[in-house]
Amino acid sequence: MSEQPASEQLHPTATLSRAEMIAALQQILPATAVLHETEDLRAYECDALSAYRRLPWLVVLPETIEQVQAIAMLCRRHGVPLVARGAGTGLSGGALPHEAGILLSLARFNRILAIDADNALARVQPGITNLAISTAARKHGLYYAPDPSSQIACTIGGNVAENSGGIHCLKYGLTVHNLLQIKIVTIDGELLTLGSLGLESPAYDLLALLCGSEGMLGIIVEISVRLLPLPETAQVIMASFDDVTHAGEAVAAIIGAGIIPAGLEIMDHLALCAAEDFANTGYPRDAAAILLCELDGTHEEVKQQMDVLENLLRGGGATALQRSRNEEERLRLWAGRKAAFPAVGRLAPDYYCMDGTIPRHALPRVLAGIAELAEEYGLRVANVFHAGDGNLHPLILYDANQPGELERTEEFGARILELCLAVGGTITGEHGVGVEKIDQMCVQFGKAELAQFHAIKHAFDSEGLLNPGKAVPTLHRCAEFGAMHVHGGRLPFPELERF
Amino acid sequence: MSEQPASEQLHPTATLSRAEMIAALQQILPATAVLHETEDLRAYECDALSAYRRLPWLVVLPETIEQVQAIAMLCRRHGVPLVARGAGTGLSGGALPHEAGILLSLARFNRILAIDADNALARVQPGITNLAISTAARKHGLYYAPDPSSQIACTIGGNVAENSGGIHCLKYGLTVHNLLQIKIVTIDGELLTLGSLGLESPAYDLLALLCGSEGMLGIIVEISVRLLPLPETAQVIMASFDDVTHAGEAVAAIIGAGIIPAGLEIMDHLALCAAEDFANTGYPRDAAAILLCELDGTHEEVKQQMDVLENLLRGGGATALQRSRNEEERLRLWAGRKAAFPAVGRLAPDYYCMDGTIPRHALPRVLAGIAELAEEYGLRVANVFHAGDGNLHPLILYDANQPGELERTEEFGARILELCLAVGGTITGEHGVGVEKIDQMCVQFGKAELAQFHAIKHAFDSEGLLNPGKAVPTLHRCAEFGAMHVHGGRLPFPELERF
Repeated sequence: MSEQPASEQLHPTATLSRAEMIAALQQILPATAVLHETEDLRAYECDALSAYRRLPWLVVLPETIEQVQAIAMLCRRHGVPLVARGAGTGLSGGALPHEAGILLSLARFNRILAIDADNALARVQPGITNLAISTAARKHGLYYAPDPSSQIACTIGGNVAENSGGIHCLKYGLTVHNLLQIKIVTIDGELLTLGSLGLESPAYDLLALLCGSEGMLGIIVEISVRLLPLPETAQVIMASFDDVTHAGEAVAAIIGAGIIPAGLEIMDHLALCAAEDFANTGYPRDAAAILLCELDGTHEEVKQQMDVLENLLRGGGATALQRSRNEEERLRLWAGRKAAFPAVGRLAPDYYCMDGTIPRHALPRVLAGIAELAEEYGLRVANVFHAGDGNLHPLILYDANQPGELERTEEFGARILELCLAVGGTITGEHGVGVEKIDQMCVQFGKAELAQFHAIKHAFDSEGLLNPGKAVPTLHRCAEFGAMHVHGGRLPFPELERF
Repeated sequence: MSEQPASEQLHPTATLSRAEMIAALQQILPATAVLHETEDLRAYECDALSAYRRLPWLVVLPETIEQVQAIAMLCRRHGVPLVARGAGTGLSGGALPHEAGILLSLARFNRILAIDADNALARVQPGITNLAISTAARKHGLYYAPDPSSQIACTIGGNVAENSGGIHCLKYGLTVHNLLQIKIVTIDGELLTLGSLGLESPAYDLLALLCGSEGMLGIIVEISVRLLPLPETAQVIMASFDDVTHAGEAVAAIIGAGIIPAGLEIMDHLALCAAEDFANTGYPRDAAAILLCELDGTHEEVKQQMDVLENLLRGGGATALQRSRNEEERLRLWAGRKAAFPAVGRLAPDYYCMDGTIPRHALPRVLAGIAELAEEYGLRVANVFHAGDGNLHPLILYDANQPGELERTEEFGARILELCLAVGGTITGEHGVGVEKIDQMCVQFGKAELAQFHAIKHAFDSEGLLNPGKAVPTLHRCAEFGAMHVHGGRLPFPELERF
């Protein structure tokens, strides 16, 4: 790599020096909206995947759509990469800056434009937090359903870019299912309105295409989401199990019985003990796993379904059951789950959070596989999952100061993702590909699919200036990685065939 | 237009004569799978939008993916248009043949490949009917939720191509929300697998992009859908109203109360009387409108919510209420609704079915607007709607044998769609754009969005050979149409400003 300070590097296609670009940006934006001093850039060098850090070339903080359009056109004209960023809570490095590109923070797009209670929708700017929408909607008896654990900090713009999920997504869907319309600015500076305020929009579904596209196709500058009526009540039940696979089987039984819980989470022994140490929520330290299941709806509906659920859990081998008796208890039972990541973070100097998704029924097989791999790599894993939708978050514990341990951890993580693929799952549930899982894309997809992804990228951004190097690997990169594509659900890894 | 018989026309880019193409196809397919005699082609000249008819150049009936790939490559190499067709039940002319192109029927892709009850999914070929999936899943206690009225005849492949809805889509989503994975053949003959059997797939959501793309991006050759557990019970309530707008207001009250019905339909006086004449289902002829609302779930849940619902409907001005007391009564109450289109068809020599979608709250405004337009055009309209999701199906009654009446009807229909747009809705809910609504696309979308649609098309089909002339108008066509784009929700039609 170059010895020159990161901030003075030029992108191969750039036709302006850094100083010239600063001057050009200052024509478009107020001086305080263009950051170029190293100490100002430092705050933007990573997102929540902090193992990857890179100082951006420059940072801009526009506050109008017109400014975003002008910045995009400037980048397009002068061949300079452009990376959009929300709150930087992303876990896959999707907002990692480009060392010779402009980082565009949407922090100043922080207004709720309208809460339309009659039509149960909210029109907002991308830089507000996820939680702010529900807070504003609350007085109308409404809320915004998708609830990533980071909802207090993450922005709705980032949620759309990553198609975020959360505890409630089993019942209420991912971001894409709660999205009505967005406005985006293309790298050519065009302002496009995608989707509609009705249920559906004709022609190609560019709204869904943009959702989860990780900043590669356009910059989201306005968002309309649908709101739901606040449920009359919600209750959670905690079931203890002496074997994590029994917890997994209980999930299948619940879904099979036609119950769609508002939340359905499993934590294994290591994770629940860590959470208990951290948050003191009353989790049973002697359990091999706990299952948390929330029901919401009317009082009668919840009561009746809770009785059915309790019978199912008992029949499925639960060794203890505890229902929340009031809102305070309900929130306390969730507090441990919501704090699981920081709690596990205290067990080791570092941890690595995975995000595979599998068909629910494969849960026991995959859990056994993870345990075998943990032994093979000599690393501990705490398992936390959105069990209802088969979204696993194995947290691999390691110590980056031990030589080779980070590399071993990354290899272990990659093996977990490949195991998810081998059972028909995917390499990411809700955290995105970013820089972290880009090699696993070569495993999940074949050459024809990757070529089609590049064609789509080209249709929006022919010069490849938006968030370069993220989400979709080049065919060349995959060739180097070995391009091990899953055909017919079978991986060409002999060691995975036994799963 | 040419005087030569339609079947001998050559597409401008074609490098093979019709006879040469027949010979080339016979190399790929058995002789019985290549139709070229006029009497054989006649059966394919239109879909359910039978006002538009065109004899295809040739028809092919492949039965393997490899054959579809070979046909696509042949078309690509020789510049010949290719149009895919399911059962031909589409209402917007999406499967209208190309006079110098090959019509590819998927009728022989008629197998259910797997019902995976453990993971609650079905893997099927595109040519089976929508209903066949639920029939096959039934013995496992499962079903496929989206249920277009034509479900007994329409194919799942056509459902994916049009992103079909149905009575149940308010609660269970459109086709796209119940789709896990598809395999498509591109015009280059590539076989792509899009989506995953898990909840989500990384990178660009090409599955959602293909869903509803009306055969413009690829040919769907395999489909995996998610199945749901059959509800324990279902019950329908019929409410009569002396004013259709009261029925519309009741819809808002139901949704506002947090009830998500499995079906929520309104029929106005003309529609309900026609249905009653046709199907003898016990609809009240003296009502200005009826609302049919179905709840499903456990017995207790349905009973409890039905009580809430009954109170809401009484409070909302319902003049009579009737609950189904058993499955037979439930099916009878729906029979009239399901037969509404053929029933209305008996009121006049011809009818024209519209498919606008509007934000629910705009229902009273739009109904009043349709009534005013009906007077202006001197034509009768029967209104049937998926009220819960704001999807309107006004049926305009006319007589094609009266000079000028078809043209007046089409203009009236276009005005209705523009009215839907003016209140923030869209020009199609579930029937697609096809050839029918292509000019209204110029009203719904601006130049930048249309250009982006063309870029997407180009990324899949650079020569424009797949289903040419459908779904997305050329910019030139829009310029001719007047390119009247809705900006900020306001239409530049003075006569619409009053709505």
